[in-house]
Amino acid sequence: MVGHGSSDNATSYGVYAFGLLPRWTALRDSISLVVYYRAELDMSGCTVLALSQSGRTRDVVEYVRRVRERGAFTVAITNDPESELAHEADDVLPLCAGPELAVAATKTYLSTLAALGLLAAHCAGEGGRFVNELRASAGLLRALIPTLEARIGGVAVPFAFAGRMFVVGRGAEYATVREIALKLLETCRVAAEPMTATAFAHGPVAALDSLFPVWAIASDDETLPAVLEAVARARHVGATVIASGSAATTVAGSDYVLPVPAPPSPLLSPLLSVIPGQLFAWALARTKGLDPDEPRGLSKVTLAR
Amino acid sequence: MVGHGSSDNATSYGVYAFGLLPRWTALRDSISLVVYYRAELDMSGCTVLALSQSGRTRDVVEYVRRVRERGAFTVAITNDPESELAHEADDVLPLCAGPELAVAATKTYLSTLAALGLLAAHCAGEGGRFVNELRASAGLLRALIPTLEARIGGVAVPFAFAGRMFVVGRGAEYATVREIALKLLETCRVAAEPMTATAFAHGPVAALDSLFPVWAIASDDETLPAVLEAVARARHVGATVIASGSAATTVAGSDYVLPVPAPPSPLLSPLLSVIPGQLFAWALARTKGLDPDEPRGLSKVTLAR
Repeated sequence: MVGHGSSDNATSYGVYAFGLLPRWTALRDSISLVVYYRAELDMSGCTVLALSQSGRTRDVVEYVRRVRERGAFTVAITNDPESELAHEADDVLPLCAGPELAVAATKTYLSTLAALGLLAAHCAGEGGRFVNELRASAGLLRALIPTLEARIGGVAVPFAFAGRMFVVGRGAEYATVREIALKLLETCRVAAEPMTATAFAHGPVAALDSLFPVWAIASDDETLPAVLEAVARARHVGATVIASGSAATTVAGSDYVLPVPAPPSPLLSPLLSVIPGQLFAWALARTKGLDPDEPRGLSKVTLAR
Repeated sequence: MVGHGSSDNATSYGVYAFGLLPRWTALRDSISLVVYYRAELDMSGCTVLALSQSGRTRDVVEYVRRVRERGAFTVAITNDPESELAHEADDVLPLCAGPELAVAATKTYLSTLAALGLLAAHCAGEGGRFVNELRASAGLLRALIPTLEARIGGVAVPFAFAGRMFVVGRGAEYATVREIALKLLETCRVAAEPMTATAFAHGPVAALDSLFPVWAIASDDETLPAVLEAVARARHVGATVIASGSAATTVAGSDYVLPVPAPPSPLLSPLLSVIPGQLFAWALARTKGLDPDEPRGLSKVTLAR
C-alpha cells in the first residue's frame, strides 16, 4: 500500500484490516525506494493498493508505473476514476464520495478506510458480514456528528494557545492517531505528533509538562491496556488529557472526554473515532481565526516530489 | 524488522539497506498485530530481525516468541547477547558496542545501522566491499566529531526557546530524520516531528512560520531534489533552516550549515549524518539546563507494553 498524507494514514488501517481478516501481510511500502532509488525489486505475486483521493499524486502514479513493470498487480483506490492514477493502475476501486470540497480531506479519508476494510473482508470471505456492520456504523456516525458538533467548540477554546500536542493510541487506531495529528497540524498549525502508546511511553513522555496536551484514542479492543498505561504516565506529570474513542470514559482523570459509540465489531472503530478529532480541528481552527477548509500554503493535490 | 525508539528508527534504514543491496522487501512490522491482536499470520519463509539495545523490550521479546511459533526464523540484533531477547531468538548478532551509558541511545544506534547494512551487504554477496567502506566511514566519523563538538554550542544557543521543530529528509536518511527528532524530544523537550520531505511539503508546511525551525538532512543521493524543494518551501514562509548531511552546503539560504563528509557510498551516509543531530541535542539540552544523559522520566529499558 502506498499513499501520501491522509491516504498514507489510511494505509496504517490497511495493515490491520488485512492482517486480521484474510491474515495477510499488508505493508506501507517505501515510495522512494522504488521511485527515487529505482530499486530493482521483484514484485511478481504482489498486489499494490495505490491510494490517492485526487488520483493525481505524482509520486504515487510513478510508483504504480514502476511496480507494474516489475510484475505487481495494481489497484487504484481513488475518488476520481478518470484520474491519471486510475488509468495507470490495472484496476480501480472508486470511492464515490462526491467532490472533496475542503483542502484537508475528511470524507474521503473515511471512505478510504471503508474501501480497505471491505476489500480485506471480501478477501477473507466475510464481505457480507462486513458490509452490514459498515452500514450500521454509518448510522452511528450520522447520529454522532450533530451531538458532537454542538459540544466541540467549548472543548476547543481552551486549546487556542497550545502550540504542540501528542496524539496517542495503538493498533488499528494508529491510523486515527496519525490522521487527527495531521488535521491539527494542517488546519490549526499545532505541532501535533502522532505516536503509538508504547513509543510514547518509551521516550517522548520525558518531554511532557502541563503545557503539553495529550490526545488519547481509547477504543475497546486488545490495545486498551497499553493506551491506559500511557495516559496514566502523561497524567502523572500533569499533562492535560483529551480522551476519545469508544472506551474514552474508561480513561481515568481525563480533562475532556469525547466518547464515540462502539461499532458492531472493533475493526470498524477507526471510522467513528476520527470524528471527534476532525470536528475538534475544525472548531480549533475557527477559534484561532484560521480557515479550516483552505489552510494557508496547502493545495489539494500533491504535485511535490 | 521490529523495535521501539531508536531501534525502530534503525529499521527505517533496514528498508533501504535490504531493498538496495539484496533487493529484498524488508518491512517495519506491526508489533501490536502479532502481540495484542494475536493475528494468525503464516510467517513461514520469513526472517525476523528483532532490534533492542538492551534485549529486554517486553513487546519485542513477546513478538519474537509468537512469530517463531508461526514459522519465522528470528535473529536478535542486540547489545546484550545474554539478554532475554537473545535467548528467545534463533540466532544473535551482538552489537559489541560496550555499555550504552546514556539513557538516550547514541553509539548503539550507529552500531545497529552498521549491523543492518553489513547483513544486507552479505546477503547481496557484497560483504567485503561494504566492510571496507564501513571502516573508512568510521574513520571519517572519528575526524568529524571533535570539529563539530567545538562548534555545536554556538549553533544550539539560538534554539533555547524553540518549542517545536520539523526534521525532514527522505529515503535512507528517513532513519536519521526520525532519530534526530527523537533525540530532540527526549533530551531537549522540543516537539520535533520527523517527516519525509514529500509528506512535509504535502501538508505540514502549512503550519510553518518564522518561529517553526526546520532541520533538513540533505545527502548527496537521488532524494536530494525532493529535500531541496521542501526546504525552499519552508524558506518561502520565513522558517529558520538548519541544513546537515553530505550535501548541506547545497541547501540555498540555510541559516545554519552542519555538513558531514561524503562516505565511500551513499548508503553509508546515515551513519555520519546523524552525528550533527546527536551533538546538537546534547548541546541544546545543556543550554536549557537539562541533563542529556539522564532525561527526566525516561528509563533505558522499555518495560511498557
